[in-house]
Amino acid sequence: MAKNTYKTVKGMRDFYPEIWTTQLWLSNIFLNTGRLFGYSEYEAPVLENINLYLDKSSQELLEKQTFIVNDRGGDRLVLRPELTPSLARLIVAQENELSFPLRWQSWGRFWRYEQPQRGRGREFFQWNIDLIGIDSPEADAEILTIAATVFQTLGISPSDVQIRLSDRQALQKYLSEKLSLDQNQYKTLLQAIDKIDKMDTKVFAEWLQDLGFSQKQISQLPSLLAKPPANFSPRLNTTLSLIPNDLKDFFTIDLKIVRGLDYYTGLVFEAWATTSTLKRALFGGGRYNNLTQQIGGQKNLPGVGFAIGDMAIFEFFKELNKLPSINSNPSSIFVTTFSPDTYQNSLDLVNFLRKNQVNATLNLDPNLKLGQQFKYASKNNFQYVIVLGPEEIDNNQVSLKNLDTGEQKLISPDQLLSLVS
Amino acid sequence: MAKNTYKTVKGMRDFYPEIWTTQLWLSNIFLNTGRLFGYSEYEAPVLENINLYLDKSSQELLEKQTFIVNDRGGDRLVLRPELTPSLARLIVAQENELSFPLRWQSWGRFWRYEQPQRGRGREFFQWNIDLIGIDSPEADAEILTIAATVFQTLGISPSDVQIRLSDRQALQKYLSEKLSLDQNQYKTLLQAIDKIDKMDTKVFAEWLQDLGFSQKQISQLPSLLAKPPANFSPRLNTTLSLIPNDLKDFFTIDLKIVRGLDYYTGLVFEAWATTSTLKRALFGGGRYNNLTQQIGGQKNLPGVGFAIGDMAIFEFFKELNKLPSINSNPSSIFVTTFSPDTYQNSLDLVNFLRKNQVNATLNLDPNLKLGQQFKYASKNNFQYVIVLGPEEIDNNQVSLKNLDTGEQKLISPDQLLSLVS
Repeated sequence: MAKNTYKTVKGMRDFYPEIWTTQLWLSNIFLNTGRLFGYSEYEAPVLENINLYLDKSSQELLEKQTFIVNDRGGDRLVLRPELTPSLARLIVAQENELSFPLRWQSWGRFWRYEQPQRGRGREFFQWNIDLIGIDSPEADAEILTIAATVFQTLGISPSDVQIRLSDRQALQKYLSEKLSLDQNQYKTLLQAIDKIDKMDTKVFAEWLQDLGFSQKQISQLPSLLAKPPANFSPRLNTTLSLIPNDLKDFFTIDLKIVRGLDYYTGLVFEAWATTSTLKRALFGGGRYNNLTQQIGGQKNLPGVGFAIGDMAIFEFFKELNKLPSINSNPSSIFVTTFSPDTYQNSLDLVNFLRKNQVNATLNLDPNLKLGQQFKYASKNNFQYVIVLGPEEIDNNQVSLKNLDTGEQKLISPDQLLSLVS
Repeated sequence: MAKNTYKTVKGMRDFYPEIWTTQLWLSNIFLNTGRLFGYSEYEAPVLENINLYLDKSSQELLEKQTFIVNDRGGDRLVLRPELTPSLARLIVAQENELSFPLRWQSWGRFWRYEQPQRGRGREFFQWNIDLIGIDSPEADAEILTIAATVFQTLGISPSDVQIRLSDRQALQKYLSEKLSLDQNQYKTLLQAIDKIDKMDTKVFAEWLQDLGFSQKQISQLPSLLAKPPANFSPRLNTTLSLIPNDLKDFFTIDLKIVRGLDYYTGLVFEAWATTSTLKRALFGGGRYNNLTQQIGGQKNLPGVGFAIGDMAIFEFFKELNKLPSINSNPSSIFVTTFSPDTYQNSLDLVNFLRKNQVNATLNLDPNLKLGQQFKYASKNNFQYVIVLGPEEIDNNQVSLKNLDTGEQKLISPDQLLSLVS
């Protein structure tokens, strides 16, 4: 077997400890923010029947971007490209037992067959947070407040990122009236608006013409989207009034935000870096009021939520110089072994530390020279190195060296314990 | 679309918050034990090229039990059935940069297409812990000590579970000599011994006869396996002498333990519940000294480690009545809203609590009656319910009810903060 068959599969990432530590840092910020607002953690299988996504996820996502899995039993399964349909399935299965509103969050892995590029891979992590069973501006405001709180916690300011939001229901009323559109024309226009930021103005106008819109409609659209009237969406205004004052600057109403996924029914929003060279939203979400009934639920269970992927966020942090450097070694103490016949003494010391819940690492090659052991400790970011030679053993002491300060001293095992615990 | 197409895929599990909380409890016990011994966390992709497993994982695992995934680029990918081959791949890719010995652990998801049964599903979680780059009895003992420490931490005693261990190298020498076997005969016999515990004695003897073993060999085998000489494996004896005294009772030498996977080269072990009705090992592991070179590595990097799946362990805990009941609600405080016009006051209070890192949940329907709000709080395991009516607001106080004790009192927001943080 040639060596090159053992490469990482295209679009996938290997998480060596120093990288994984950063993943854990990020997921803890997300999940702790969710907990601050009372959200419980859940998880779903990563394999779902393909039917679960039909007519809910975008067709593009489903037809071109899913990994299909052969169930040996004959069903067509997919590696989940998103969590919301699974969330709806879990809720419908227990809609008579669960107590609403539900506050649920999840950190998990997802797969999309896309061209790998900066901030986008085929396997990624995503934080999903959703509030199910209530349709109120207060609920919308809670979800938006959580999104802004995450940025605040990460030390990111409104000048770095803006959460652009709109109201799909208000937009339909507004554009249908102003441009005299029927339901089908509106739907076509909505899908076009979803691409507006990715296209040149002239190309976009030509595209609308091809789609059958009149010159008058095409010329009116930009100013309608750019300057909505103050009463565009009273619901959105109420929602924004319920955001804490110190977070209000994170938000701008922007009618070009419509979101690609079919299941959104009201509030929609996306976070965009203001200064970044990344040409994509950092994350998005919105209100979806019909999802559980669409998959067979009996109850009216409106929902609102959003999902943040890890990859765009990490690229954004790199640009802002906000990625922390975290030691991936969970143990700060390296216990050397002086010689094969004192090995048991060093082993007894680490056992003593571990019994007292102190993380400690032991040299496991009794013949390794002390100098080599110090080199290993230094290369692996240990703060303390302990030597237990015959003299220390006779005096019931250990020799402790602090690799950060260079300081060295003789102390008892009990003193060591109080120093490090 | 009929409702029944939206079922959980066979062999998969939905993790509602109360179940997921137990998963988190278990994974934290595993990962904290690893940290106690200085093991860093890492992760690998869940999709790997099928070639990575050839000649390493058991053929049975590969041919019958993998989920195959269509990479739209044409490669044959599998949903990982185990982690060790990925671990070897990560190490080989950086064998000149990494500092050995490596102490690595991981908690992740795996997939095997097996018949779902008690303690076995098609999607499961597994804790993998491995020590790479050193071949010494001290290293073997560290891995075994970690395994026993997990049981001790979980409150499980040597009368509940035994870690049965053997030495594949010693076994080959011992059986080849005593039964005059050549290399091929030995390999055949080893694969047979792997099934010995699952078969009736007579059926097993007949099977050996079919495999070409003599009556003499067949009749000698049981006593050879049951009563190994004291010097069967000096290495294993040294290893056991390095286990802390309070953990020694967890271990028994048992030559019937050989492990199915082809890559083990020395120490092998399995944990078996002594009293459980589960007819399978709780987990297993061993030493694998050739794995990285087998996939193209240049360095000699011996390894030792083990993996514990979640499902058998959970069944075992259920039998022992050791599954904890954990509140899945991360917030202990429910803040009610008295009326629509005092909603902002309640919102200000939760904002104040959250600013001070106290998890708090707010009612989001300003028109919901107070009685309904109390019902919701009680059903969702909140400890405290807060009422902010016009009188409390005038006096800058909150009314606090402790649902556990029934106690009710008026306190200031600052007093509330010191009570709950």
